[in-house]
Amino acid sequence: MTSSSDDPVLDQSLLDGNRPTGRHHIVIVGAGFGGLEAVHRLAGAPVDITLIDQRNHHLFQPLLYQVATASLATSEIAWPIRYLLRGRPEVETLLATVLGVDTDARRVMLDGGEAVSYDTLVLATGARHAYFGHDEWEPFALGLKTLEDATTIRRRILLAFERAERETDPRRQAALLTFVIIGAGPTGVELAGTIAELARDTLAPDFRNIDTRKARIVLIEAGSRVLAGYPDDLSAYAQHSLESLGVEVELDQPVTDCTAEGVVYGGRSLAAKTIIWAAGVQASPAAEWLGAPADRAGRLLVLPDLTIPGHPDVFAIGDTVTIPGPDGKPVPGIAPAAKQQGRHVAESIKARLRGDAAVRPFRYHHDGSLAQIGKRRAVIDFGWIKLRGSLAWWIWGIAHIYFLIGVRNRLSVALSWLWIYARNQRSARLITQGQKDNIVAERPTNSSPTNPH
Amino acid sequence: MTSSSDDPVLDQSLLDGNRPTGRHHIVIVGAGFGGLEAVHRLAGAPVDITLIDQRNHHLFQPLLYQVATASLATSEIAWPIRYLLRGRPEVETLLATVLGVDTDARRVMLDGGEAVSYDTLVLATGARHAYFGHDEWEPFALGLKTLEDATTIRRRILLAFERAERETDPRRQAALLTFVIIGAGPTGVELAGTIAELARDTLAPDFRNIDTRKARIVLIEAGSRVLAGYPDDLSAYAQHSLESLGVEVELDQPVTDCTAEGVVYGGRSLAAKTIIWAAGVQASPAAEWLGAPADRAGRLLVLPDLTIPGHPDVFAIGDTVTIPGPDGKPVPGIAPAAKQQGRHVAESIKARLRGDAAVRPFRYHHDGSLAQIGKRRAVIDFGWIKLRGSLAWWIWGIAHIYFLIGVRNRLSVALSWLWIYARNQRSARLITQGQKDNIVAERPTNSSPTNPH
Repeated sequence: MTSSSDDPVLDQSLLDGNRPTGRHHIVIVGAGFGGLEAVHRLAGAPVDITLIDQRNHHLFQPLLYQVATASLATSEIAWPIRYLLRGRPEVETLLATVLGVDTDARRVMLDGGEAVSYDTLVLATGARHAYFGHDEWEPFALGLKTLEDATTIRRRILLAFERAERETDPRRQAALLTFVIIGAGPTGVELAGTIAELARDTLAPDFRNIDTRKARIVLIEAGSRVLAGYPDDLSAYAQHSLESLGVEVELDQPVTDCTAEGVVYGGRSLAAKTIIWAAGVQASPAAEWLGAPADRAGRLLVLPDLTIPGHPDVFAIGDTVTIPGPDGKPVPGIAPAAKQQGRHVAESIKARLRGDAAVRPFRYHHDGSLAQIGKRRAVIDFGWIKLRGSLAWWIWGIAHIYFLIGVRNRLSVALSWLWIYARNQRSARLITQGQKDNIVAERPTNSSPTNPH
Repeated sequence: MTSSSDDPVLDQSLLDGNRPTGRHHIVIVGAGFGGLEAVHRLAGAPVDITLIDQRNHHLFQPLLYQVATASLATSEIAWPIRYLLRGRPEVETLLATVLGVDTDARRVMLDGGEAVSYDTLVLATGARHAYFGHDEWEPFALGLKTLEDATTIRRRILLAFERAERETDPRRQAALLTFVIIGAGPTGVELAGTIAELARDTLAPDFRNIDTRKARIVLIEAGSRVLAGYPDDLSAYAQHSLESLGVEVELDQPVTDCTAEGVVYGGRSLAAKTIIWAAGVQASPAAEWLGAPADRAGRLLVLPDLTIPGHPDVFAIGDTVTIPGPDGKPVPGIAPAAKQQGRHVAESIKARLRGDAAVRPFRYHHDGSLAQIGKRRAVIDFGWIKLRGSLAWWIWGIAHIYFLIGVRNRLSVALSWLWIYARNQRSARLITQGQKDNIVAERPTNSSPTNPH
């Protein structure tokens, strides 16, 4: 048990006043793909649900890199959580930060000294980027997990071009026009490809003193190939596609330092004012709240039924856990896996409420992997079939529009993509917030004061 | 002359290296309606233009209140300035902050110790909200001039409902559900009407512990009627429309204090956690840069041809100047007036370059006034005809879509409005940035650290 609350009289602020008594009460922390799927699959069950999230919105993370590269607007990939659940009177949504869990009293402690009691707890709190013990890199190597991360990266990329346009020193101008992406998994590959297209196609006609097509986009990977989770031939195709867009792919190159001046890898220094971190994640502190066993990345080691050892009333799902898949490798940290786990937890809770105490293990089914590299370039691995190129790109686009929520956002994203496709016009090229990010090239690039991460 | 630069060797950083010599060089500061119109009207003239703005985007200010009320996304009413001018190779766009003007050397001083020299200077730097000598109200009474202002107001409005949902103390809950708008000009009226519709129609199904329809929206005006610039009968219609939406309209009530707890007016205190300031503006510091005469609100007193007295090579236009209109009253601070002035300046410069030294005075033509109060409720005063109600509302909507730039944004805004009209769904209900705005009701509401204004 862990609690940061200073208020010893927790009962006074127990937020249970509005619930009818007697029904099984489920508290779900986190409204990502896993948490939200659990809520959806519990529709009709004789339960009350409290859904807690630090944000007021559910985020479609697979397209977050498109916000970071000015291709989509924030509101196109985010929905107010309570709007998504407006038709579910038994679900209460709370915008709150969880500080700890008291498993003995079965309570979740919130900021402000409040607590919510539960009968069953589901932790779906996700992960954040991590720097493998190099937290000092964080101000320089920007991670991408939240909407604010995305608008911060967008601002920094666009500011780098703006500063280069004003810069008269060639060396500093080159550093401003060098963009480093660390990590060549799907996010790193998609970021590198989109930044290359942004520089080549979208921005080129708009600048007078610089040629944005000469911007260097360098993708650095510690492993021996890009998209390591894909078959070899798709990795090779992805690398070739990136290189044809002008991306420099550096393989077998662990980064050894990140500073305000650039990166160091393979004993070389590369001057770069914009560094993006797509190389690793750390689970949320759910394991600390519970005092439960976790792996080095902080991921909870759950039982096969997704409960915490010793706590059958506490489930954990998604990026905050690690569990072996049918092939013995860990279940990947992707949206379909989190949704399958959310569904499994909902079914398990409903079975228990029916008196069915048999523990069913979670079985992960891998539907496939998709990654976009650039316009008309994508790779798809469905297992039974592999696709690449133009057809894969169309399937990628249609699949992502399909998985968006609601007609309005589907239309809006389709419209944005149509304009990018036909006219290279990206609709969200806005430098907002962070007025203290100075645009004067002489001073070091500081981390944005608006981004606390 | 005023300069904050510490660098005595300004020539070393004179940003004139990229321009061909010999052509008349115009520096335009500010890419609002006036500055951008001047650039557009100078197309084809034998000049080089440097357009300087602190932001990378042109903002469609008449719809800014719709971003503040979650009705439109930021990117729907903002365009990258250099994108709008991508087809004009003679126009250079600089993202920079002007620190001063040296009228003797004919140079504009930028942040970073740089300077740009000019043959003709056009100052179109706009205005910001002002508190009539009560700057201490700023943290509590939020102004609305920039995209950041709008997303801050949006965050604060949405957070107030979120906090009220968690609040157990009825008195604090009431303060969270009280929204005060100070000033019943067009912005105040449009904000009050839209917040009322947000609370009544959009949010009501989404909350469990509060009835958002019981939120109080209080519009406080020091004068004796709303929309004072409109004819009496339209003012009366607007007030009636607001009241039918549940807005409490308080006339003849100067506000005497704004604090973290609420507002004081007419000797009464009203507890309110959200206060929006729509009551007054202050011109940008252009008058200070020039050491030129200005009115109490800092607006430059320009000559009839829009030049600064004693500086025929310096024009000033838009909200940063004051000039009498044909009816003797000051030209209003609205987009059409700024555009007419931008056009006048462009024509004057072209005439001078043709050797026509005759000074033509600027003549303002008032095309009309439009304000929206809520769905199917608007007022229009074209002078020769006055309209109100449903027809006025359709004309208002069509006119605003027409004045947006580009097919893409017109489609996108039309889509957003269709969803609000048909389903009361507002697409941009995002609480972003400002994670340090605490959502715990007990502590005082501080100004957001992400908003330096």
